[in-house]
Amino acid sequence: MNFTDSIRQTKKDSFVMASLSHEQRNSALSAVADALEARKSDIFEANRIDLANAEAGSLAAPIISRLKFDEHKLNDVINGIRDLINLPDPVGRTLLQRELDSQLILTKTTCPIGVIGVIFESRPDALVQIASLCLKSGNCSVLKGGSEAKNTNRILFDTIHDAAAASGMPEGFSVLIEDRAGIDQLIKMDEYVDLLIPRGSNAFVQYIMNNSRIPVMGHADGICHVYVDGAASIKKAVPVIIDSKTQYVAACNAAETLLVHRDIAHVLIPALAEASGSSITYKGDEETVSLINCQPSTEEDYSTEYLDYVLTVKIVDSIDEAIDHINRYGSHHTDCIITEDVDSAARFTSLVDSAGVYVNCSTRFADGFRYGFGAEVGISTSKLHARGPVGLDGLVTYKYTLRGEGHIVSDYASGNKEFHFRDL
Amino acid sequence: MNFTDSIRQTKKDSFVMASLSHEQRNSALSAVADALEARKSDIFEANRIDLANAEAGSLAAPIISRLKFDEHKLNDVINGIRDLINLPDPVGRTLLQRELDSQLILTKTTCPIGVIGVIFESRPDALVQIASLCLKSGNCSVLKGGSEAKNTNRILFDTIHDAAAASGMPEGFSVLIEDRAGIDQLIKMDEYVDLLIPRGSNAFVQYIMNNSRIPVMGHADGICHVYVDGAASIKKAVPVIIDSKTQYVAACNAAETLLVHRDIAHVLIPALAEASGSSITYKGDEETVSLINCQPSTEEDYSTEYLDYVLTVKIVDSIDEAIDHINRYGSHHTDCIITEDVDSAARFTSLVDSAGVYVNCSTRFADGFRYGFGAEVGISTSKLHARGPVGLDGLVTYKYTLRGEGHIVSDYASGNKEFHFRDL
Repeated sequence: MNFTDSIRQTKKDSFVMASLSHEQRNSALSAVADALEARKSDIFEANRIDLANAEAGSLAAPIISRLKFDEHKLNDVINGIRDLINLPDPVGRTLLQRELDSQLILTKTTCPIGVIGVIFESRPDALVQIASLCLKSGNCSVLKGGSEAKNTNRILFDTIHDAAAASGMPEGFSVLIEDRAGIDQLIKMDEYVDLLIPRGSNAFVQYIMNNSRIPVMGHADGICHVYVDGAASIKKAVPVIIDSKTQYVAACNAAETLLVHRDIAHVLIPALAEASGSSITYKGDEETVSLINCQPSTEEDYSTEYLDYVLTVKIVDSIDEAIDHINRYGSHHTDCIITEDVDSAARFTSLVDSAGVYVNCSTRFADGFRYGFGAEVGISTSKLHARGPVGLDGLVTYKYTLRGEGHIVSDYASGNKEFHFRDL
Repeated sequence: MNFTDSIRQTKKDSFVMASLSHEQRNSALSAVADALEARKSDIFEANRIDLANAEAGSLAAPIISRLKFDEHKLNDVINGIRDLINLPDPVGRTLLQRELDSQLILTKTTCPIGVIGVIFESRPDALVQIASLCLKSGNCSVLKGGSEAKNTNRILFDTIHDAAAASGMPEGFSVLIEDRAGIDQLIKMDEYVDLLIPRGSNAFVQYIMNNSRIPVMGHADGICHVYVDGAASIKKAVPVIIDSKTQYVAACNAAETLLVHRDIAHVLIPALAEASGSSITYKGDEETVSLINCQPSTEEDYSTEYLDYVLTVKIVDSIDEAIDHINRYGSHHTDCIITEDVDSAARFTSLVDSAGVYVNCSTRFADGFRYGFGAEVGISTSKLHARGPVGLDGLVTYKYTLRGEGHIVSDYASGNKEFHFRDL
């Protein structure tokens, strides 16, 4: 079967998937977990080949570390699948049930989205998590992982696919794409693919958004802010800023810009610089440059996702200036206020237009696992459908069913009958 | 202020709107209702000018009828606003509240989407309904109505705008576009506009979708089906088919194709043709042509939205053939099965991939008012965000707030602390 035919078949199979019961989907997940355990030595062997190739190709150490798939990571993903099995069914939930008139019953019920294309980075554990989330939510998945992990991805995919298919899922419930050309084919297939979730660099996500008519869920960049209010606790502020910036600089939820209220700037900024030592390189406005050893910042810095141990500092005159800055330069991902003032916290959470608006805690908490969603398929900065970390809830839509006994609209248009709207 | 500046101001004002209370938004709605009543003679006068122009321009009778805005329509929209005031606040609803760890509380709360551009047809009542729905849900609106209604739209807009602004809404909470060029400017302003809702012809909606990076909610066409199962009641089937086709042929939820199970075709089709008399022109497959007086259909008919008293008839061998036909040729809008068999009904509602899946009732029920949503801003055939008739619920998104006391991620990464996830 060629690629187009296989995606077409997956679309057909998505209707079958939508009709399977929670028990059937869960027993497939259980078979997947068992199969991963049973085939682990083959999986580790495939991963050793990818690692050897990566080392021979002199890939950067962080990539090699993400690529590694060992006993520890296998246990994590298997435990993740077991947790997923125990979560309630996201499909078939009744969101509304309303009697419109006698014997005319409207029901709004969750259902799978259909076919979801996910393009993700070099972590092989991402493949298992994404395939499992799609399976649990009754969706078919088309998966494309990082090419560095191709041997590991292939055996993981085959293991998952064969176990789930043997347990009753339709053959096309999941498809693996192994070359970059497949992505370009996939994103043109808007007739068969309902949603794309690209994870990766800003440029890559923009490329997908600009070249596909398929709805895209995700985020292009993560320019997150910490704002230290005049009424902040320095004791809370300093560790939260350092954690937001340095706990994992390559993540989209790491902070890039620090905004500080003038009332506290002369205390906070030197205390921060002292506490962070040489671990953070600062850029700052004129006043910040006069307070600590740092480079002058430019307006471009406010729109830059460093993905590095670099933090821009700007002193503001008011909370409203901070909010305006965040709404203007931010990426509507995750932004935090440090304050002891309840009104400032309320104003900030109400006016900042971001998926996550935090008070007195690190921006690095923006993550599906840390929110208790199990795993996530990605983080959305779009305002439609799903926003923030996307777990099972973001992978379902709904349909309305209306059941009558021959009811016709002309009876209501003529006034013969009247709706009475009674929620059941 | 030029157009771009006014949309930019509306974006700024959208943050203010998001912070207003339900009482403030409701009192603005109340002021709008009062002002419409107070200015009614001016409104009717403006409408007489539009009607005179339409008649002078020889516009078709149905357009003139939609254009008319009289005492009856004014009362309808004012009653609609009063009903809207009594609906619960769609903004600020808590969707989830979870303790991630001691003193670290995650809250998922609904909030307005921001700036919504709505382009609608010639009914002036649509302007009032859409502006009111956006106001109730805390969104700013950019409105473009049909040019035939320009005098009526202008006075309705001014009345609504001035009353709401005097009652405390920010000046830019709503903007009226009066020329077609404004649409082309608007759809390029993805930095300031969060959502577009185009209502109109298939070609127009496609044009918007293809020429904007702003998310679009709505539907391009409405190819709805009625499938008569082998186990159907003829007594229910005939009136439901006639109502689905003829109750209002210009609507997107009117049926275009009738699918009939072979077991019942020889009884149903002649009974239908007799009951509908000359009110419906039939097109049919070879077998249908042998049963009743009708033109032969082509494959193109299966993808055609007639917007006319024309119905294509196809005889199928099984419910699965009907489902496949609907999922292939339909527009995922609203499709109905006529059956007395519970299993057939369940199979159809599970496998048909449409926003509305009906059993034994007319497709014409697919409408926000008939679902008890108050008014609607449109009907969505997209699977993301909102599907089917879109009322207040479809005009809000959500944000996550996370409140801590200096919580940092490195404590959890190192194992010093552990999440405990407890829903509150």
